[in-house]
Amino acid sequence: MPLQDDMHLISVDDHLIEHPNVWADRLPEKYQELGPRIVDVPREKGGPPSQVWEYQGKRYPQIGLNAVAGKDPKDWGIDPARFDEMLPGCYDPVERLKDMDLDGVEAALCFPSFPRFAGTVFLEGDDRDAALACVKAYNDFLIDEWAGAAPARYIPLAILPLWDADESVKEIERTAAKGVRTIAFPENPVPLGLPSIHTDHWDGVFSAAEAAGTPLSLHFGTSGVSPKPSPEGPMAVSITLFGCNSMYAMTDLLFSPVFHRHPNLKVSLAEGGIGWVPYMLERADYVWDRHRWYQNIVHDARPSELFKKHIYACFIEDVHGLDNRHSVGLDNILWECDYPHSDSNWPNSRKVAEEVFAKIPDDEAYKIVEGNARRIFNFPRTEESTGGLGSRS
Amino acid sequence: MPLQDDMHLISVDDHLIEHPNVWADRLPEKYQELGPRIVDVPREKGGPPSQVWEYQGKRYPQIGLNAVAGKDPKDWGIDPARFDEMLPGCYDPVERLKDMDLDGVEAALCFPSFPRFAGTVFLEGDDRDAALACVKAYNDFLIDEWAGAAPARYIPLAILPLWDADESVKEIERTAAKGVRTIAFPENPVPLGLPSIHTDHWDGVFSAAEAAGTPLSLHFGTSGVSPKPSPEGPMAVSITLFGCNSMYAMTDLLFSPVFHRHPNLKVSLAEGGIGWVPYMLERADYVWDRHRWYQNIVHDARPSELFKKHIYACFIEDVHGLDNRHSVGLDNILWECDYPHSDSNWPNSRKVAEEVFAKIPDDEAYKIVEGNARRIFNFPRTEESTGGLGSRS
Repeated sequence: MPLQDDMHLISVDDHLIEHPNVWADRLPEKYQELGPRIVDVPREKGGPPSQVWEYQGKRYPQIGLNAVAGKDPKDWGIDPARFDEMLPGCYDPVERLKDMDLDGVEAALCFPSFPRFAGTVFLEGDDRDAALACVKAYNDFLIDEWAGAAPARYIPLAILPLWDADESVKEIERTAAKGVRTIAFPENPVPLGLPSIHTDHWDGVFSAAEAAGTPLSLHFGTSGVSPKPSPEGPMAVSITLFGCNSMYAMTDLLFSPVFHRHPNLKVSLAEGGIGWVPYMLERADYVWDRHRWYQNIVHDARPSELFKKHIYACFIEDVHGLDNRHSVGLDNILWECDYPHSDSNWPNSRKVAEEVFAKIPDDEAYKIVEGNARRIFNFPRTEESTGGLGSRS
Repeated sequence: MPLQDDMHLISVDDHLIEHPNVWADRLPEKYQELGPRIVDVPREKGGPPSQVWEYQGKRYPQIGLNAVAGKDPKDWGIDPARFDEMLPGCYDPVERLKDMDLDGVEAALCFPSFPRFAGTVFLEGDDRDAALACVKAYNDFLIDEWAGAAPARYIPLAILPLWDADESVKEIERTAAKGVRTIAFPENPVPLGLPSIHTDHWDGVFSAAEAAGTPLSLHFGTSGVSPKPSPEGPMAVSITLFGCNSMYAMTDLLFSPVFHRHPNLKVSLAEGGIGWVPYMLERADYVWDRHRWYQNIVHDARPSELFKKHIYACFIEDVHGLDNRHSVGLDNILWECDYPHSDSNWPNSRKVAEEVFAKIPDDEAYKIVEGNARRIFNFPRTEESTGGLGSRS
């Protein structure tokens, strides 16, 4: 202690902004017209126009929701409206490496932005064939262009054509063969109009993920539901409460048939936090002890046992969670950077990590910042791995 | 340690079942027809008829939702359908004292059942005058008949005519004058069709509660919203996640103007648990530090400071929460029994409390099981207080 220089920081939750040609470069000719494209929209206050995505006739106002890395918190609140208003590391995988070096981060798992963190934007639009082509184009971009820029430093994550379970299975198999290490899946499919995890609808998808050895990455917010108790409340309420979405996802999984039917499935709760986990597992066990008798609940394993085997909780800064890391489970914690979003400590991620890990034994810190991620995502160190300290090595 | 014999267990969350004549005994003649009454409904499987409440033309199927005290968990799942299928202590305040004695519980704060925990059933029905009479009748029953049976052992809680802020103020003043110590308020008024706590709608109500020195008791579930991620999921998911409702309530309060406008208002989060509090306060402070600049958030006090001054978290059994009691705040924790619901350990509440407090210093245990409740609810020991050990003293 503190964090040793030879420990790599592996972030399992970062975000990339798709550059304007991600789909234009890849879609077959017949889908070019239907694919996402950047269009200019004049700004009310004048100046250069905003750049927004247009897809199947609908405009999506943010190109990089919450891409505030490098800005003072006092200037937050207005998302960048043009690519030239954000750091190039947001949308350029080679520039991103420099920002990761500055930050002392060795490797990153990047979620999509315009497609949303689980690709759910492609549930919209009438042309499903075009949508399927868009999902595949995104995954090819992510694998070939983004992760391909530095295979030792990007953990490739694929999105699915969620409206079609059979096509989702094929896309898991196709992308796994190309090196994908994890699959984005909604924290809850129900609010998206999709069948719940308690049905057998997703069995093929979960089996394919098991077979491919690709954990599901459930980023909070991917159900499309924001915690918002009061319409007049500030956005800070939702930002504070987003971890509840991960609590919902975890609890629903633990009382579902999913892990009983898919004993090798792993799930990462991206950006959900870890400090609440001991409470919620204790509560789940308490309820399981008392209420399983008369409900449709598998009696084979307590919720906390299922968690230990299947679920990984993720954090950026979480003093209470780290103090209680043994109650969460040393093998069940993953570290996150969240570049370029407002929760991130960039460019001080390693500095902050050194502080929060100051009193944590080396073997425990290693698991949390590097070992668990390398094991779970089958992402070993290679000759191309850097020294881990980025620009300070 | 463990829990000393001279410490009284004060439960700030129990439930009473209204006996059939609560309203018939009290309503003015002109409202008798419109008041709640028990009616018999034949059961499909034969046997004696079910007893259900009927109010303003609508039937409410449960007389004592979840009144399972004394039953084996393997027999839960079907709520008692008749008064003679439940313990008399559910609906008789003198019999209840015997059950409290058995349980080693000195005093109890009882929430209503048919009116729901915050009296929100009276938002239904077209005749508001009758509804107001029903609210007053309930409060009179609670104060005169229930708490009146043993004033040293019942902390009287009043419900409000929530559809009318002015009448609510009057009812706070009327019941406070009669000895009420706390006011039931919904964890969130918005899902009930009422204005949010971020508006100025409730200012009179909150000011009246401040002036009367009566904390608000926000029981989880009183917004009418259950956490239910999947329609096919077992009820255990909702039971496990109900604490999230209290997280929503706490966070919404901490980022609202309420405590800035009402510096003496106190709020108890009944049945919400305590183990999640350190995580959520840390998260709220983190968000406040970063996001307050561009949002409508008062900059005077951090969320954790507001919590310390205004909010009380409540638990039945919560090992993680008690282990982290200093992070929650020793002065901000209240103990609960939850008789006659399924979360309760009755008749072993004191036995279980002795176990969970085994390693906690006496002065800390005293605050949590007795001192905080007596202070917050202005409910001092009197000559009529018992030895506190119930039937074992």
